[in-house]
Parts: sequence; C-alpha cells; structure tokens
Amino acid sequence: MLQHTHTTAPNQFIEAGGIRFAYRKFGKEEGVPLLMLGHFRATMENWDPSITDGLATRRTVILFSNTGIGLTSGTTPDTIAGMSKDAVLFIEALGYQQVDLLGFSLGGFIAQQITLDRPDLVRRLVLAGTGPEGGQNMQEYTPEVTIAATTEVPSLENFLYLFFSPSENSQNAGRAFWERRHLRNNDLEPASSTGVLIAQASAIGKWGIPNPALPRLKEIKHEVLVVNGNNDIMVPTINSYNLFQHLTNSKLILYPDSGHGFLFQYPDEFVQDVTQFLNKK
Amino acid sequence: MLQHTHTTAPNQFIEAGGIRFAYRKFGKEEGVPLLMLGHFRATMENWDPSITDGLATRRTVILFSNTGIGLTSGTTPDTIAGMSKDAVLFIEALGYQQVDLLGFSLGGFIAQQITLDRPDLVRRLVLAGTGPEGGQNMQEYTPEVTIAATTEVPSLENFLYLFFSPSENSQNAGRAFWERRHLRNNDLEPASSTGVLIAQASAIGKWGIPNPALPRLKEIKHEVLVVNGNNDIMVPTINSYNLFQHLTNSKLILYPDSGHGFLFQYPDEFVQDVTQFLNKK
Repeated sequence: MLQHTHTTAPNQFIEAGGIRFAYRKFGKEEGVPLLMLGHFRATMENWDPSITDGLATRRTVILFSNTGIGLTSGTTPDTIAGMSKDAVLFIEALGYQQVDLLGFSLGGFIAQQITLDRPDLVRRLVLAGTGPEGGQNMQEYTPEVTIAATTEVPSLENFLYLFFSPSENSQNAGRAFWERRHLRNNDLEPASSTGVLIAQASAIGKWGIPNPALPRLKEIKHEVLVVNGNNDIMVPTINSYNLFQHLTNSKLILYPDSGHGFLFQYPDEFVQDVTQFLNKK
Repeated sequence: MLQHTHTTAPNQFIEAGGIRFAYRKFGKEEGVPLLMLGHFRATMENWDPSITDGLATRRTVILFSNTGIGLTSGTTPDTIAGMSKDAVLFIEALGYQQVDLLGFSLGGFIAQQITLDRPDLVRRLVLAGTGPEGGQNMQEYTPEVTIAATTEVPSLENFLYLFFSPSENSQNAGRAFWERRHLRNNDLEPASSTGVLIAQASAIGKWGIPNPALPRLKEIKHEVLVVNGNNDIMVPTINSYNLFQHLTNSKLILYPDSGHGFLFQYPDEFVQDVTQFLNKK
C-alpha cells in the first residue's frame, strides 16, 4: 500500500540538535528508505513528482529541507561538512539505522560527505549531476550561468538554460518538467533566502578548490550509481566520469542531449535505472 | 515461442557475394533481429550463452562468422571497411530491411562502419568494449597484452588476463564465463586461423591510427548504447566516453571493477541494460 504521494504528503517536522527540520515522507513502507538531497537553492518543491513518485512505488522516499532552508529553522552552514553533519542529525532523529541517498548537484556533495563521515549510515548512493571535492572546473562559472543561477526569483527561462540542452527536445522536456514541479499546490515551502544562497555558494566554492588526486573517494566502498547528462554546464560532466573512475564500486550512466537536469528530462528512464540499481540483490 | 537456444541452434549457411556465411539464429521471432559482431579472433563459440539466450527471450539473436572466420569461406579482409561490406552482404542475403547491431571490440568497429555505410540498414546500435576510428591508444598494446592476445590456442589464463580485472570477484566471474562458453558441445566452429589473426590485427592497427577529431561519429544519428568496464586494457575505457560524447544520440553505461570482458562478468545486468535500451519506445 502506498502512503501519500509527492503532491499529497503533509509537511512534517522533527527536532534534532536544536534545529526543527521540515520533511515529507511517502511511498511504499518497505526496505531501506531513500533520502533525497537537493540542488543549490532548492526546497522540497524543486523535485520532479514523476521521479519521486516513480521511485516511491518501490520504497519510502523522504524529501527534507536542511538547516535554514524552506520551513526548516536555523542558519545554513557555509561548508559541505556542516551541511552533512546536520543531515546526519536529521536521519538519526528519524530513527533510521541505514538509508539510501540520492544526492543531486550540491546534494551530491553532501551525500559523499555523509558517506565519508558515517559509512555505517549509508547503504547505497546515487550521485546525480555532481562531482568530487576538488574536481574539474567546479568553481568557475560563465557569467551567463552565474546570472541565471542567482536571480532572485528563478524563472522557467533560467531553468531551461541551466538544466537543459539547447535542443528542441530538451527544451520541451524542460517545459514539461516545469509543469510537473508545480503540480503540488498545498502547504508549499517558501523559496530559499539570499542568506541560503550566499552560504551554499561559499560551501560550493570551497568544495570546488581543485585537487586532481581526489584523495578521499577511494575511502568510499559503497555501491554507487553515478549519473549525469552529456553536457552539464553547472558541474561539468567529466566530473561524473572521474567520480566513477575513483569510486571503487560504482556504475556510471550518462544520458544523451542533456545537461544538469537530465533526470528531469528522462524521468521514466532515470527511475528505471535508479530502481534497478537500488533493487539489485 | 522460443526457437532454439545458444547451445541447440544448428549451424546454417547462406551465400552472398561468393562467400558462404555460417550463422546461427535463435530466440523469439518478433521485432527487429539483433546481429552480434564478435571480438578479435572470435568465432560463434566466443559468446556467452547467458547473454545470447538472455537477449533472445525478447528478440531474434543472430550469431555469424564473417568472411574467412570459422566455418565461413573466403579470405578475411584486412580493413574494417572490407569486413563491414561483407557483413552488409550477409544481412541483405538474410532478407532483413533493418537490424539492431551489438558490436563487441573489433565487432564494434565494424558495427560503426556498417552504420556509416548503410544507415538505413541499422535501427539501434550497442557498442561494447570498443572505440572510434582514430581513438586514444587503440593501436598500442603492452607486451603482456600482445602475447596473451596472440597465443596460438588462447587459454583460460589468457582470457582472465585480457578480459577481467585482477580482483578476486572479477577473476571468479571469468572462470564462470569460461564454463558457460563451453556449454555448447555440438557442431562447433573451428578456431580462427593465423591468417584471420594477421588480417584482423592489420585492420585494427589501421582503425587505431590516432585522429583526435573523430570526424565521422557525428554522422551517426542512430540511438546508440555505449558500454564498457572501468579499466579495459584492450580498448582503453576513455574511448567509450569519447564515443558517447561524439555520438549525438547515445547513452553511456560503464561497469565497476571490470575490463574488456565486463559483459561476461555481469551478464544479467548487461542483458537487462541492453534489453531496456533496445525495447525503449
């Protein structure tokens, strides 16, 4: 039996370490729950219901807002280490011994850090549109990207530019995604503040300081699925290849004619690939 | 209803262009047939029944020996162009308007060339453990690889070295593959001659002359699945990444802790990934 969906799941709150975390939980109550870690400036409203509900047919899916984001209290830390520590507090407060993590972009940095800090707490890891600490060109953006990523109220046009390829197919998929992500219309989170933007940008900048040896990745022995589009202008795709080559037990899947938002472009295929990975015996 | 299997399919023969081609056909009589193009020195005995029978549950699978190989008559050409021309003669003789191609290693070179020469004849393309014409380090082998790849009668040890990673898991998977590939014991093809080895080595050498622009890949508009292990010592894995980046409509999947023979290491996962790709609407 499915408990709630992306659009019906009520906001819930749980306190840990002095922070009141907002979260939503839905899907099948079975197996290891999947915690979703979102992108730069994202709240719980920035996921694609086709993905979250698609994954939730086989497992419990949990969305949450980390410290200072959306309906969650506190001040957003300006380091990935700080964000990861808070996420661990949240997971432990929910009483889980082990979770699967799906980290997208900034969420993928946090997912890696959680796995390094608390390997026991993580079963499997999906790293989407993300890169390792010290990866290639991860702290340098074109002026166009910087402007589109930091507008006060991100528009459809900003998303189409940042997350999708210029092709007609990709742009159309972007518009369809935009419709889907606005399907929920009750109990929405407020957008992230400028304070969140500044703290996250600072954390991303530090994480991106180049270190070609990628020394910590070999410590992660977990099964990992690394996924991206073929031309990600936010976290260049070569970083996904490098994650794969340094994570000893990882599988890489890259999708055609797509950028950072490849998962929103191919939601069904993405759900199928992630489900196959998470369900593997 | 399934017609025959890897181990029971009879040898068949068909003539085209003065060549008598040996082939085997089995599986479900439905949809677009899948033609398998094998590796350096391979005959029809070099496939993994777990893969061929796995794929054949959803489509017709065709193995064949190209000119001069196994039970097929004629002299093996010493160019990829010549091999591709002969493969096209064979496909047309069978009366197919269109096929899917799964090209492994040398077979992947031929599959690309067929697609360039006769785009109408190909629906979808799976390129496994292979690289583009002019790719990176595709004509330079270590002395160990050269010796193992050219022994008169390739042994289990040669296969374990060339096709699998040094890890215990990979080596064990290699031994299990070796058992499976010897399951068929009736009407086997003779091993390839030294003449085949010399002609194929010459063709591979010419295909591998570096040309970093990879100019012809953009001509291929077909849907392509590019697959490899993370450390292929025969056709370096970076070539799979580069194929993906230059083929406009391709998806890339790379598997952990594996080499050239990744497909034989993860036969069930490989069948699942290829079936998902070929069945996609």
